[in-house]
Amino acid sequence: MVNVAILGFGVVGSGVAEVLTQNKSIIEKKLDKEINIKYILDLREFPGNPFESLVIHDFNIILNDPEVSVVAEMMGGSHPAYDFSKACLEAGKSVVTSNKEVVANFGAELLEIAKAHGVAYLFEASVGGGIPIIRPMCNDLASNNITEISGILNGTTNYILTKMTTEGAAFADVLKDAQDKGYAERNPAADVEGLDAARKIVILAALAFGKSISPNDIYVEGITNIATSDVEMANGFGYAIKLIGHAKMVDGKILAMVSPRLVPHSNPLSGINGVFNGILLGADMVGEVMFYGPGAGKLPTASAVCADIVDAIAHADGSIKLPEFKIADASDIADVESYSCKRFFVFDKCPECALDSKIAEKCFGPISNFAIYGDKVALITEEMSEKNAAALCAKLNGCKAYRLL
Amino acid sequence: MVNVAILGFGVVGSGVAEVLTQNKSIIEKKLDKEINIKYILDLREFPGNPFESLVIHDFNIILNDPEVSVVAEMMGGSHPAYDFSKACLEAGKSVVTSNKEVVANFGAELLEIAKAHGVAYLFEASVGGGIPIIRPMCNDLASNNITEISGILNGTTNYILTKMTTEGAAFADVLKDAQDKGYAERNPAADVEGLDAARKIVILAALAFGKSISPNDIYVEGITNIATSDVEMANGFGYAIKLIGHAKMVDGKILAMVSPRLVPHSNPLSGINGVFNGILLGADMVGEVMFYGPGAGKLPTASAVCADIVDAIAHADGSIKLPEFKIADASDIADVESYSCKRFFVFDKCPECALDSKIAEKCFGPISNFAIYGDKVALITEEMSEKNAAALCAKLNGCKAYRLL
Repeated sequence: MVNVAILGFGVVGSGVAEVLTQNKSIIEKKLDKEINIKYILDLREFPGNPFESLVIHDFNIILNDPEVSVVAEMMGGSHPAYDFSKACLEAGKSVVTSNKEVVANFGAELLEIAKAHGVAYLFEASVGGGIPIIRPMCNDLASNNITEISGILNGTTNYILTKMTTEGAAFADVLKDAQDKGYAERNPAADVEGLDAARKIVILAALAFGKSISPNDIYVEGITNIATSDVEMANGFGYAIKLIGHAKMVDGKILAMVSPRLVPHSNPLSGINGVFNGILLGADMVGEVMFYGPGAGKLPTASAVCADIVDAIAHADGSIKLPEFKIADASDIADVESYSCKRFFVFDKCPECALDSKIAEKCFGPISNFAIYGDKVALITEEMSEKNAAALCAKLNGCKAYRLL
Repeated sequence: MVNVAILGFGVVGSGVAEVLTQNKSIIEKKLDKEINIKYILDLREFPGNPFESLVIHDFNIILNDPEVSVVAEMMGGSHPAYDFSKACLEAGKSVVTSNKEVVANFGAELLEIAKAHGVAYLFEASVGGGIPIIRPMCNDLASNNITEISGILNGTTNYILTKMTTEGAAFADVLKDAQDKGYAERNPAADVEGLDAARKIVILAALAFGKSISPNDIYVEGITNIATSDVEMANGFGYAIKLIGHAKMVDGKILAMVSPRLVPHSNPLSGINGVFNGILLGADMVGEVMFYGPGAGKLPTASAVCADIVDAIAHADGSIKLPEFKIADASDIADVESYSCKRFFVFDKCPECALDSKIAEKCFGPISNFAIYGDKVALITEEMSEKNAAALCAKLNGCKAYRLL
């Protein structure tokens, strides 16, 4: 029998207890071993909950119980989640987690500790909720150089952008609706300002490129400045506006960023709507593959955590192959100013100017799309650096520049 | 050092040699072991080919060489591919394959032999080419009951249907174009009549439901009878016509089939175009996940074969968890006649009748869409069994009935 402890009995933690109970027979058949939830650590009491009797408040009971071999950490936040995870690994217990904050900030260190102690540190649920992404990236693409990652990594913002697209609703109204439905937090900053997606893209970049960048060291732009008219104009040009976590190697350095982007309707990411997530990987042998599914939610996220629990138990002999990445230093990180891509500009039409695409090309260079939309001008340029885009924007009234994917 | 033998030096076989050579350092770093291609078995000679010196014609050299621990079978066809695979497994060598015909027909037996000899039999490349699907299904969804599978499993037919949709071209013309471009075989029957997709859906159903059905025992319908006008009418109703391999449990029995289906534009499978494949899985805990990528091609398929080679080597100690399925008997297989789904009917308009949706409902029951398109009538019904759909179709001139997904 394998004893598992759950740290944090919130949404995902209670989901893990539910999956392990409801699908106990499937999991035990796969493992040919019995699984038992021995403890659930939480500060709160849960009177009347079917797992009430397992709830404890003292982490040391778990840490010091040699019978507990797998710990599932779903506490959220960096501390004490990181500290508890580290202590468990050092005590020879495998740790699985959905905590993207800990993985993004301390993943490299925790993986090293896990390796030194012959145990597992797994985090499938930290990116893309229930979507299989980390294990397929490490195992199924094992013979590939991964060259590029583009992902819709946050369900809340994708829900808001989808509503803005399909219903022509304004950002603030959709945010309120999403909060009322429970898709967005009361304090939505981590979602709508892009930090949640930033944590996820740095995890994926670390797996792909072997170097872990702090989410604080990448360019992050959220969706709060997107106007409904921007979405409509982009759509008219054949693009959806999505919040994209993007990473690739540029001259041997890692470029990672989060920003709203125009995704062409021919790109499979453009059709990912609502709270769903999708991750598109480019790799030298396979070409392009995409993984799609529920990027959050109690049972989907718990499904990914439980896959890690199964994996940790199946390889309890230390035979598990963990990913390896080191902490990046400044020389590993590409300068975002040099990043070049096609751009979508939208700016106020000057009432007394007779602007057309020919005149605009004198300023923007070759233009593939041009439209006047009420008192706004929208156009798409060829590739242009961040610096040049910002300089152009500064010259024009009410100008916004979006990157194209 | 691990010695690998390649059986079959055709498109995929030469791709595997290329991937193992070109990305040797990535693979060896992952495994912490050197990999060497020792033999390539083929009937032909390859003068001038960089791998020329490895080519042999006698399978027994591989079988009897104790240094060869992993054999990659990419011969195609059932025999001698099955016989060679079986002999290798019995000799204690792991076998990996892209051969869907062998897996669909002999997978259950070969898995059992592999288990008995403590070696691996892996077949990631047999479904979806380079798309990670089999390993994620078995590992990442380990804590789920998989309830339903729907897949675009054949790139040739998807290319043809995409062209029919986007260009309004006729089936025969697009097939010829696909043959000229090398996307379709000179003898396209296995693709356009659905047999290739049938082999793949029975493999996925075996993994999901634990029972392997012969591809000859499922309902299979290809795309040869699809008219461009059917595609246009479906599109007008908000659906794409796709060749879908579908499997689910119905009253404890397995229902598996291949047929053209109307896929609503809101379903992510509807946007999968050209030679790409996509597989949508429904599972009780995660909900819906989809895997997308190149369903065929030299390097993508080789990428999947090489992932299996890496997995087999990493678990050469016998610690690998292989899928388990048994051969289905008649009582495991659902009667297709009882299968019920919404239907799209298209039939000749009777010139002297004043048919409208109200009159049509007397015959078809409740109708969600109705349109007259030249001399054709198109409509969508509620759920209806195969038997009732066929009976209705028989009564109407020029009638075709399509299933909805």
